[in-house]
Amino acid sequence: MAASKSVINVAALCGSLRSASFNRGLIRSAMKLSKEAIEGMEIEYVDISPLSLLNTDLIVGGKFPPAVEAFRQQILKADGVLFATAENNFSVSAPLKNALDWASIAPNAWADKPAAIISAGGTFGGGLSQLHLRQIGVYLDLHFVNKPHFNVNAFQPPPKFDSDGNLIDEATMESLKQVLQALRTFTLRLQPK
Amino acid sequence: MAASKSVINVAALCGSLRSASFNRGLIRSAMKLSKEAIEGMEIEYVDISPLSLLNTDLIVGGKFPPAVEAFRQQILKADGVLFATAENNFSVSAPLKNALDWASIAPNAWADKPAAIISAGGTFGGGLSQLHLRQIGVYLDLHFVNKPHFNVNAFQPPPKFDSDGNLIDEATMESLKQVLQALRTFTLRLQPK
Amino acid sequence: MAASKSVINVAALCGSLRSASFNRGLIRSAMKLSKEAIEGMEIEYVDISPLSLLNTDLIVGGKFPPAVEAFRQQILKADGVLFATAENNFSVSAPLKNALDWASIAPNAWADKPAAIISAGGTFGGGLSQLHLRQIGVYLDLHFVNKPHFNVNAFQPPPKFDSDGNLIDEATMESLKQVLQALRTFTLRLQPK
Amino acid sequence: MAASKSVINVAALCGSLRSASFNRGLIRSAMKLSKEAIEGMEIEYVDISPLSLLNTDLIVGGKFPPAVEAFRQQILKADGVLFATAENNFSVSAPLKNALDWASIAPNAWADKPAAIISAGGTFGGGLSQLHLRQIGVYLDLHFVNKPHFNVNAFQPPPKFDSDGNLIDEATMESLKQVLQALRTFTLRLQPK
Repeated sequence: MAASKSVINVAALCGSLRSASFNRGLIRSAMKLSKEAIEGMEIEYVDISPLSLLNTDLIVGGKFPPAVEAFRQQILKADGVLFATAENNFSVSAPLKNALDWASIAPNAWADKPAAIISAGGTFGGGLSQLHLRQIGVYLDLHFVNKPHFNVNAFQPPPKFDSDGNLIDEATMESLKQVLQALRTFTLRLQPK
Repeated sequence: MAASKSVINVAALCGSLRSASFNRGLIRSAMKLSKEAIEGMEIEYVDISPLSLLNTDLIVGGKFPPAVEAFRQQILKADGVLFATAENNFSVSAPLKNALDWASIAPNAWADKPAAIISAGGTFGGGLSQLHLRQIGVYLDLHFVNKPHFNVNAFQPPPKFDSDGNLIDEATMESLKQVLQALRTFTLRLQPK
Repeated sequence: MAASKSVINVAALCGSLRSASFNRGLIRSAMKLSKEAIEGMEIEYVDISPLSLLNTDLIVGGKFPPAVEAFRQQILKADGVLFATAENNFSVSAPLKNALDWASIAPNAWADKPAAIISAGGTFGGGLSQLHLRQIGVYLDLHFVNKPHFNVNAFQPPPKFDSDGNLIDEATMESLKQVLQALRTFTLRLQPK
Repeated sequence: MAASKSVINVAALCGSLRSASFNRGLIRSAMKLSKEAIEGMEIEYVDISPLSLLNTDLIVGGKFPPAVEAFRQQILKADGVLFATAENNFSVSAPLKNALDWASIAPNAWADKPAAIISAGGTFGGGLSQLHLRQIGVYLDLHFVNKPHFNVNAFQPPPKFDSDGNLIDEATMESLKQVLQALRTFTLRLQPK
């Protein structure tokens, strides 16, 4: 029991569906870091691409479509959540909002979970999508880590990603590691005493 | 030419895909009002349900998927836009965000268009989705009408909608009419002199 | 030591400076409730009216103006914070923003504190000011209670306040009590184990 | 009459009160540019430091305090507004919010005016304060220019300001000029035909 609490399971979601997404690259790096350099954290990538566009008419006889139900179960069993938001037009991406909303339908799968947000993008490094996600998260009842802020401007020197979207900058990787450690600390702190 | 300017064509989008949506009901009422009581405005309902979840990998050889291309053309030809946002978790719905993002890819189909926002919902009557849409609209380069605010609490007496989502409250209909008139006035005001 | 942890000290700030403020009334009710009906919580009202408009030129030789220094000490010693935001023009009030910013100057007096937000107002019951405060709180490193939401529309029947701004509605008082209990629970949960 | 319309009078407000403020520097540059390089625009700096913290109890017998009344008159007579927001804790500064709120009390002095926003700051270059101002502006009934975005990261190379807060970077000056031209164009476009 003590052991099960000291290793936290984190569900990682990426807001962008494109294959060479920088934000997907951030999650790959986070998974690698959690294995190599963070004790007590296992990150599982949760694919949000199979979910159909939200329409509550698709809930028939109290049953969600199978892909939605599977997704909801993955969120429910996680101790915490790592969001790699992609910023589109000063907000979160549609695929991420879609996933957030499907899992929020009662019983809300996000309820009372700790979460951290990372992003890469243009001018604001995805920072505006993070803030919209935080407002959404109030209703979802997520508890977000406040610090450190992690929003990487992907186009400022030095190069941060290779052409496949892999994170290649050491300083950024160190910051990412600090986010993961902060998520672990906050998750443990929120656990029942 | 003068005539084409005095009748404005409005594209109407509904954030909710469910059939008995209150917000869809608002658009039906707006279309009826524009025919019966507003001079110089034609509202066309634009369906956003056929769009696939945003993934820029689906743009092949500079070509959008056919449903996306058709949607973009409908936005492009409109003089103005009427959004009936559905509020999900303190923000816009995923289907609406999806539509906004697909049409924003360069060349941005929303650029420089006037727009109005209406919504119905719970506590805030969809008001929080309206404000997220306004932030998104800065990047889309939309010009939103400021007043009157129209966010109907669908669950406060007197009854506002019937069970099919049709607007049945006279006072709310009068407010809706004022929004449409404000959109027409603002659209004409923004036209080149 | 164990005792000092089980009684939490809460600093209560009101966004409005006018004497008959509804939000001040909420704080008076919260103080009364904390004495009569909540075990282990002491609420101290912190006056933000003596603070001059923020101007970092007023920090001379590393010293804050005396009223600012006194205010910062009151925040520092609190275990948690209760904000009664007044909504002005879809955001927090200027006096509250002023207090938030003065206490945020390094070393940040808000750092890592739990907080709850209550408000009374017009259409949105102050709800928009709460959401702006939450965004500000990310930078301040505050941890906000998510639920229950408490934003009272002061003008909807039944009457909520008397003409002196005292809360007179029993159901609203019960909700307020739940907010205070949630703040206490969250504060204890965040304490080091 | 035609002449009075073609020269637009712009009120310029700075969110920061400190003497070497970068945002004040942006306004000084804007005033210089409007004289030397923009036809048909006169910018007047409006000082917001004399305003007391908002408290509607200070309105006695329907009269505002003299400094507030003078400020309101300066806003009322302007054809448009230029805001140089300072970002504090992910939002607008308290002095700016204070000025916005004092002039918004009915009759709202901001009503139906065009406005542009510029800012300089850290990570986001003040961009988050701009977005909060835009939400506030919905209620104030301001019409904001959408493009170009102007949020200068003051700490990224090359140097943007000297130690007195004067803008010294040519490329940034050129962007600022484009904002002013956009404000002029938008103001003329919104004028009655």
